[in-house]
Amino acid sequence: MNGAESLVQTLVDSGISVCFANPGTSEMHFVAALDRIPGIRSVLCLFEGVVTGAADGYGRMAGKPACTLLHLGPGLANGLANLHNARRAASPIVNIIGDHATYHAQYDAPLASDIMGFARPVSGWLHQSTSVRDVAYDGARAVAAALAPPGQIASLILPADTAWLEEARPAPRLPVSSPSLVDDQTIELAAAALKSAKKPMVLIRGTALLDAGLTAAGRLAAATGARLACDTFAPRMRRGAGLVSIERIPYFAEQIVDFMAGCDLLVLVGAKPPVSFFAYPGKPSWCTPDDARIITLAQPAQDGTEALVRLASAVHAPLEPAHVATFARPDQPTGKLNAFSVGQAIARLLPDNAIISDEAATSGLGANHFMLQACPHDHLALTGGAIGQGIPVGTGAALACPGRKVICLQGDGGAMYTLQALWTQARERLDVINIIFANHSYGILNVELMRVGALNPGPTALSMLDLSNPKLDWLKLSEGMGVPAYRATNIEEFCKYFEHSTQNDGPHLIEVVI
Amino acid sequence: MNGAESLVQTLVDSGISVCFANPGTSEMHFVAALDRIPGIRSVLCLFEGVVTGAADGYGRMAGKPACTLLHLGPGLANGLANLHNARRAASPIVNIIGDHATYHAQYDAPLASDIMGFARPVSGWLHQSTSVRDVAYDGARAVAAALAPPGQIASLILPADTAWLEEARPAPRLPVSSPSLVDDQTIELAAAALKSAKKPMVLIRGTALLDAGLTAAGRLAAATGARLACDTFAPRMRRGAGLVSIERIPYFAEQIVDFMAGCDLLVLVGAKPPVSFFAYPGKPSWCTPDDARIITLAQPAQDGTEALVRLASAVHAPLEPAHVATFARPDQPTGKLNAFSVGQAIARLLPDNAIISDEAATSGLGANHFMLQACPHDHLALTGGAIGQGIPVGTGAALACPGRKVICLQGDGGAMYTLQALWTQARERLDVINIIFANHSYGILNVELMRVGALNPGPTALSMLDLSNPKLDWLKLSEGMGVPAYRATNIEEFCKYFEHSTQNDGPHLIEVVI
Repeated sequence: MNGAESLVQTLVDSGISVCFANPGTSEMHFVAALDRIPGIRSVLCLFEGVVTGAADGYGRMAGKPACTLLHLGPGLANGLANLHNARRAASPIVNIIGDHATYHAQYDAPLASDIMGFARPVSGWLHQSTSVRDVAYDGARAVAAALAPPGQIASLILPADTAWLEEARPAPRLPVSSPSLVDDQTIELAAAALKSAKKPMVLIRGTALLDAGLTAAGRLAAATGARLACDTFAPRMRRGAGLVSIERIPYFAEQIVDFMAGCDLLVLVGAKPPVSFFAYPGKPSWCTPDDARIITLAQPAQDGTEALVRLASAVHAPLEPAHVATFARPDQPTGKLNAFSVGQAIARLLPDNAIISDEAATSGLGANHFMLQACPHDHLALTGGAIGQGIPVGTGAALACPGRKVICLQGDGGAMYTLQALWTQARERLDVINIIFANHSYGILNVELMRVGALNPGPTALSMLDLSNPKLDWLKLSEGMGVPAYRATNIEEFCKYFEHSTQNDGPHLIEVVI
Repeated sequence: MNGAESLVQTLVDSGISVCFANPGTSEMHFVAALDRIPGIRSVLCLFEGVVTGAADGYGRMAGKPACTLLHLGPGLANGLANLHNARRAASPIVNIIGDHATYHAQYDAPLASDIMGFARPVSGWLHQSTSVRDVAYDGARAVAAALAPPGQIASLILPADTAWLEEARPAPRLPVSSPSLVDDQTIELAAAALKSAKKPMVLIRGTALLDAGLTAAGRLAAATGARLACDTFAPRMRRGAGLVSIERIPYFAEQIVDFMAGCDLLVLVGAKPPVSFFAYPGKPSWCTPDDARIITLAQPAQDGTEALVRLASAVHAPLEPAHVATFARPDQPTGKLNAFSVGQAIARLLPDNAIISDEAATSGLGANHFMLQACPHDHLALTGGAIGQGIPVGTGAALACPGRKVICLQGDGGAMYTLQALWTQARERLDVINIIFANHSYGILNVELMRVGALNPGPTALSMLDLSNPKLDWLKLSEGMGVPAYRATNIEEFCKYFEHSTQNDGPHLIEVVI
């Protein structure tokens, strides 16, 4: 067996079942091995930002890594922005980058570059295989590294000759470490602090935002009156009727300061104290009140859910959590077509157990407004601020969760970065509804231009934020990649197209003209 | 004046007149400064790979840098693949990356990343401004660095507060170093070697592939019988009737070995000895005969043209160069629609002094077959092998050379990486004819899969090279971004659409169904 076959067999044995790929010449043996060794579904993407974004979405929803297959330094480079987002999401990803044969490196051929240099800023684990004898073991180590709590990107560079040489053998699956448990002292400290605090807040991130963690947090709130909050951009959160509702920290610095006002105790569960997304002249970066005490209940690599359950016990919390959302089906929206009416329609028609990949940008507030009382679903946010995540993450989530509807809430500016994801949705016949909020503008920047104090912008500045010359035609772009598309110019049309999309398999796109 | 204004004024004073931009919040003061300070044309691109590819094309054709404007680490990351190509092309680029305010870095906000780490592998010069007082001087240094022979990427990281703080002043333009001259000893050595060689070859890269260098090389060939060659992927070459013809080194290793067979002297002018693009089992990476003598006449940073002129004198070359191409207008093509008939049509109808941006991949041989005897033009190749260069480079070239027609020869696989460039062409009404060779396949990989010895590929492997499920519709994709498009299914249609495109202003796209 050659090195590529030993690696693919090892990945299968280690639990990898999906490979998002944009291969080239140096990865041809890996591609051939995917054919010969059963167990991995190969998903072709036409741009590497789709590969890595899909791997992120898959990792968030599957709780285990997919692998990528990227073509040398430039292929990796094209995937880095969504790897940045995945790093912020702590998503497990086995990131495989083909390279020139080891002996070819000395010739500095045109595609040669500093792959390690490109990979380092996004990788929690980084290794270049140097021998066909080691490559399988390197693969097993990469899977274990990707799964190291809370999850990380394990980048494995695969020189072509380590893939094509013979006499390789698969390596056994390596043990995966579990999240470590919080010590008793920390639980006691947090319990005592919560009892004496006047206005405590528990800020949660990571898997503690799934059902069990939410319930424990809700019990804690019932016992102590603590507010429950999550980051503006949490990697994954369960949300909707029957689940404990969590307040989402707002986006702008001064809003965060208002949100945190009076808080005298901040208990962190896998989270960091909230800071401003950007700096602004004369506005704070740090948003926690100076006199608030900050206690870390659980680090990101620790078991936040277990810590919340024990903390709830320590404060003698009731079994019934507070803040459980009731189901409230909104009325049929009428009136103007905007993010709020669209959000109302989505909440009204949301299929049970859907997944929402949210990169709605300026339309996000409205689109998410009614969701707390909708059918329970998963919400995936833009974790690293690198736009172009929404549709790829939705694509990967759909592959991780067959049978569940995925809804991408996507601003048009961000959609343009990785629109190639639509083709993969069509090819794989994924149940994704892509909702493009087409304001034909980098809408957020019109706000930001004012906020940073760049007053009286002239036509050149404003034109840099304007996507309307020419107007992007999302019907044509979507159909050009094989995804049926509809344009909603009023809320009635949107309701019709959204309902149709929920009732039919395969990908759909709805351009919302706002 | 604030830091951003001082920087923009300095860039203008240093000769920068175009900024390719995809800005975000942290670059809003720079955007506002572009408005207040006249002298720089701001060109919005909807994806950063378009920004950097366009800056590459601009740099190759203008011989001076444009500046980019990118949004933090992820914005830079999206532009890295085309910066890799630009590095291989030795294109001058002032690569400006906005960053968080200096004091905000400590909070590790979601968009924070190791920008220096991302930038280092592609940057010949790299600096992060730390003070509003220095930022203008940093800009002047960046321009001078970008212009350091033979040209390089100068990356300047611009923290938001160095842009927004006041009390800045512009910095004066810095002197730019010229390419150094080759010493007499080297000229004499090369002259003597050429006289005694049986089968010499002169391999040329860089500005020596423009008119003056070509003429000197042709005179050298007339005197010594030396073959004249250029790399498979030269950044820029003048080509066509009236110009000295240069043999292009073929792509595959065994073809290069054949091409070099018998060569007993290789004279390098800004080039390196040819190597295989990829390594293949059992095939050579190094392609120069072992017994060939290798002489470096000029390093990339030296004046290769001047060296060729002096070398021609040293060998008492005649004033009339050899290998001057005559004009031969091909017949109207008939028969099958393929890369050869399309190339014949283009050569027949090529406007004078056109620019060809060539990422035709497997269609390249045919498309370029007739060009040596067509109207004189510039040929820009895919220098670094990172596909997705062709349309952005053509976009930048069009901005550098108003009044000249740009023709992008583009494979469909590569076109998908940076198709957003079409929107910028429409917005700026650029005279670019985008010819998409739609074989609905990563055609080259079908060849490579066999060549690397991955025999008997199964359906999974083959499906990884197949773009036909679903078929990309380039008419819709192009029209979706505002570029009128035509589909040629036979050669007569192609001729009609190409002629129409040459006779009308603005961008056009022709899908060639092959």
